[in-house]
Order: sequence, then C-alpha cells, then structure tokens
Amino acid sequence: MSKQATYTVRVEFGDCDPARIVWFPNFFRWIDAASRHFFIECGVPTWNETEKTLGVIGTPLVDTHARFVKTASYGDTLSIQVSVAEWRDKSFVQRHRVVRHNAAGEADLIMECDEVRIFAGRRADNPEAIRALPIPPEIRRLCE
Amino acid sequence: MSKQATYTVRVEFGDCDPARIVWFPNFFRWIDAASRHFFIECGVPTWNETEKTLGVIGTPLVDTHARFVKTASYGDTLSIQVSVAEWRDKSFVQRHRVVRHNAAGEADLIMECDEVRIFAGRRADNPEAIRALPIPPEIRRLCE
Amino acid sequence: MSKQATYTVRVEFGDCDPARIVWFPNFFRWIDAASRHFFIECGVPTWNETEKTLGVIGTPLVDTHARFVKTASYGDTLSIQVSVAEWRDKSFVQRHRVVRHNAAGEADLIMECDEVRIFAGRRADNPEAIRALPIPPEIRRLCE
Amino acid sequence: MSKQATYTVRVEFGDCDPARIVWFPNFFRWIDAASRHFFIECGVPTWNETEKTLGVIGTPLVDTHARFVKTASYGDTLSIQVSVAEWRDKSFVQRHRVVRHNAAGEADLIMECDEVRIFAGRRADNPEAIRALPIPPEIRRLCE
Repeated sequence: MSKQATYTVRVEFGDCDPARIVWFPNFFRWIDAASRHFFIECGVPTWNETEKTLGVIGTPLVDTHARFVKTASYGDTLSIQVSVAEWRDKSFVQRHRVVRHNAAGEADLIMECDEVRIFAGRRADNPEAIRALPIPPEIRRLCE
Repeated sequence: MSKQATYTVRVEFGDCDPARIVWFPNFFRWIDAASRHFFIECGVPTWNETEKTLGVIGTPLVDTHARFVKTASYGDTLSIQVSVAEWRDKSFVQRHRVVRHNAAGEADLIMECDEVRIFAGRRADNPEAIRALPIPPEIRRLCE
Repeated sequence: MSKQATYTVRVEFGDCDPARIVWFPNFFRWIDAASRHFFIECGVPTWNETEKTLGVIGTPLVDTHARFVKTASYGDTLSIQVSVAEWRDKSFVQRHRVVRHNAAGEADLIMECDEVRIFAGRRADNPEAIRALPIPPEIRRLCE
Repeated sequence: MSKQATYTVRVEFGDCDPARIVWFPNFFRWIDAASRHFFIECGVPTWNETEKTLGVIGTPLVDTHARFVKTASYGDTLSIQVSVAEWRDKSFVQRHRVVRHNAAGEADLIMECDEVRIFAGRRADNPEAIRALPIPPEIRRLCE
C-alpha cells in the first residue's frame, strides 16, 4: 500500500448545475488536484522542479473509472482520501474516495475513483509529445 | 443499438495545462455536452421541458470509465461520436469516442468513455434529492 | 463600509495554462466563491434558503472591472479580501483584493476587482427570468 | 480600427448554475477563446509558433471591464464579435460583444467586455516570469 493524504474541497454555487447538484466534471477537477496533493504531502517537489531533476513533467491519466454514489451540493465540504493502490512498471493506480461527513460524524461516500496514471516525460524527438517513464524510485520511496 | 450523433469541439489555449496538453477534466466537460447533444439530435426536448412533461430533470452519471489514448492540444478539432450501447431498466450505457482527423483524413482515437447514466426525477418527499426513473419509452423511441 | 471576509485559494496545476500561469477566468471562478463566502461569513443563509424567505436566488453580476497586477502559478496560496465598498438602491459594489503573502510576510497584490451585483429574484410572469430586488435590509444589516 | 472576427458558442447545461443561467466566469472562458480566435482569423500563427519566431507566448490580460445586460441559458447560441478598439505602445484594447439572435433575427446584446491585453514574452533572467513586449508590427499588420 502507500501513504494516505486527504484533500478538502468546499463545494461552491458555481460548481453546481441547474439540477442544483455538483456538475460531475468538477469532481475530476478536484480529483486531479487531490492526486497532485498526495505527492506534495509525501514530499515530492513540484513538476516544475522534477522536470529539471527527473524529467517528470506530470502524471497524466491513462485510464479512470469512477462511481457516483450520492449527490453533493453547494455548502458541502468534501474530503478526498487518496492513496496508491498499486504500483506497476510504468504506471500506478491511484485511489480516491470522496466523502462527506454527516451530522453523526460518519463519512458518507459521495463518489470513488480509480485512476491509472503514468509519470510523463517529454519525448527527445518531439518535446511537444510525452512518453511514460519507469516509476522513478526516488518518488515511489517517498510515497510508501 | 441506437442512433449516432457527433459533437464537435475546438480545443482552446485555456483548455490546456502547463504540460501543453488538454487538462483531462475538460474531456468530461465536453462529453457531458456530447451526451446532451445526442438527445437533442434525436429530438428529445430540453430537460427544462421534460421536467414539466415527464418529470425528467437530466441524465446524471452513476458510473464512467474512460481510457486516454493520445494527447490533444490547442488548435485541434475533436469529434465526439456518441451512441447508446445498452438500454437497461433504470439506466443506459452511453458510449463516447473522441477522435481527431489527421492529415490523411483518418480518425485517430484520442480517448473513449463508457458512461452509465440514469433519467433523474426529483424525489416527492424532498425536491432537492433525485431518484432514478424507469427509462421513459417516449425518449427511448426517439433514440433508436 | 462593511465587514471584511477572506477566502483562501490553493492554485492547482490544472488552474494554469500552457504559459504556466493562472488562466484568468479561474480568478473569476474564485471571486464568485469569495463573493458568496462574504455573505456566509456575515451570517446570510444559503440562496436556497433565501429564495424561500426573501425571494433572493443569488447575486448575479451586472458589471465587473478587474486589474491584473502580478501573475500567480500552481503551488501558490492566494487570499481574497472581500468587502462591500458601496450600497446603492438596487445594487452594491463588492471589492475583491487577491493577494499572495511573500517570504517577508507582506501581501503582494495579484489582482483586484470591483463588482456591481444585484440581489436577484424570479420574475412573477416568467420564473426563468430574473429581476433586481431592492437591497434586502435583513441582509444589509448582517453585512455592515 | 481593425478586422472583426466572430466566435460562436453553444451554451451547455453544465455552463449554467443553480439559478439556471450562465455562470459568469464561463463568459470569460469564451471571451479568452474569442480573443485567440480573432488572431487566428487574422492569420497570426499559434503562440507555440510565435514563441519561437517572435518570443510571444500569448496575450495575457492586464485589465478587463465587462457589463452584463441580459442572461443566457442552455440551448442558446451566442456570437462573440471581436475587434481591436485601440493599439497602444505595449498593450491593446480588445472589444468583445456577446450577442444572441432572437426570433426576429435581431442581435440582442447579452454582455460586452473591453480587455486590455499585452503581448507577453518570457523574462531573460527568469523564464517563469513574463514581460510586456512592444506590439509586434508583424502581428499588428495582420490584424488591421
């Protein structure tokens, strides 16, 4: 397994749609920030810096699977619990559980999402294109 | 199967992140619009109207699975090909293929996404909450 | 003058564009949340509730003027200082100063924005249309 | 004056907020794309290319003033009419009129916005920081 980090989100009026619930692409916006937050909490530097030291410019998604369980609306505070569920050779599975604490203090599951991400570098032959790097051991060590 | 509809997207500068590629939550923004566009193309009225006639306020997601194949960047024009892959009792699977036509006129697959959606109505006991309605036959007929 | 409230924002990777700085529409996203946050801090209920009690469904913008002074990028924490600079008959001017504290603890001004907003209600003849209400004294009292 | 360009926007369900009207930061999203579209229509290459040839990485905002006249909602098609109202030494004023054509074919003004923008380059001493360049005559010529 891995360390765990929690990213907190306030749901705002503008995050909700005419049905008065969170417009779902916003969950992915928050999950992307939570994914990054996990690495920061583990002590990994900004991608700006890792580009110079390790050639890593970010962790783009290759696959994501999300399940929406309960709706959320503005005024809610959500907690996104992030961990790495699996390390593969050139990718990893990051798990996100978005919960809302109810009046009884229990965590209601709002949605959950498993992401497959890679550590991306620029291609030598074409700096506009990216490629998957082997998991940098310096980064993995910080996260375990 | 179902009818097919195509939703066209211009990728803008602001849709891209510091890695110079589309920031992935934007794909879900476009797919949500493509999902809606499919019903418009099939002749289904706005959710504003169906709320009055059928009690349907929209088609919220319950599950989505996306696979990212190639990156896209600003200046690209993307086509999202939408269809309904499966009708269930109280949900349906909407399939989205996001492609970019290359110089040879071929459609390069950028990403693909299978969504499970419901037709949602307001709950009688709590108009702020929603519930899944049986697939409205009036709507299904228009889409097949 | 009025009370003051502060809304805190973490700038995320996805908030930045290919020039590696905050994509400016995101400032307006945050300012809209800060505007709402001001009323919450002053003790005004959610618009959901005020729709029932006062007929107020929100505070849409009628005019906004923003000046961008310094750039911000991901990793930054921004503070938005909000106040009401002027109460008019059917509108008010809300002032937002977005600052970033530097290493010396000083507040660097990133951008500032004066918004003219109204308290909006639904039109009796057309619930889809909105109209400006006189400033509700119950709300103004809470903000001064 | 300058050339004029028109950028077309379909307002989507997710662009609207719980008050069922366009959430205003989305107007700035579209105006930013319209601003870029103007230069494309005038024959200016992508910022990616101008970074290499002219050192121009984009046209960040320094000041924007918007007036909101009528609301818009999902299902609407909006036209953004863009021109350059004034060329200054190191900045220019770009004017945006967002209109919706009504049943009689007349253009109803939804909002209008005057932006002051610069042509930005990277600073020699700090490539993460930007500076205003003199208006590149190659670009101005294409726009007049």
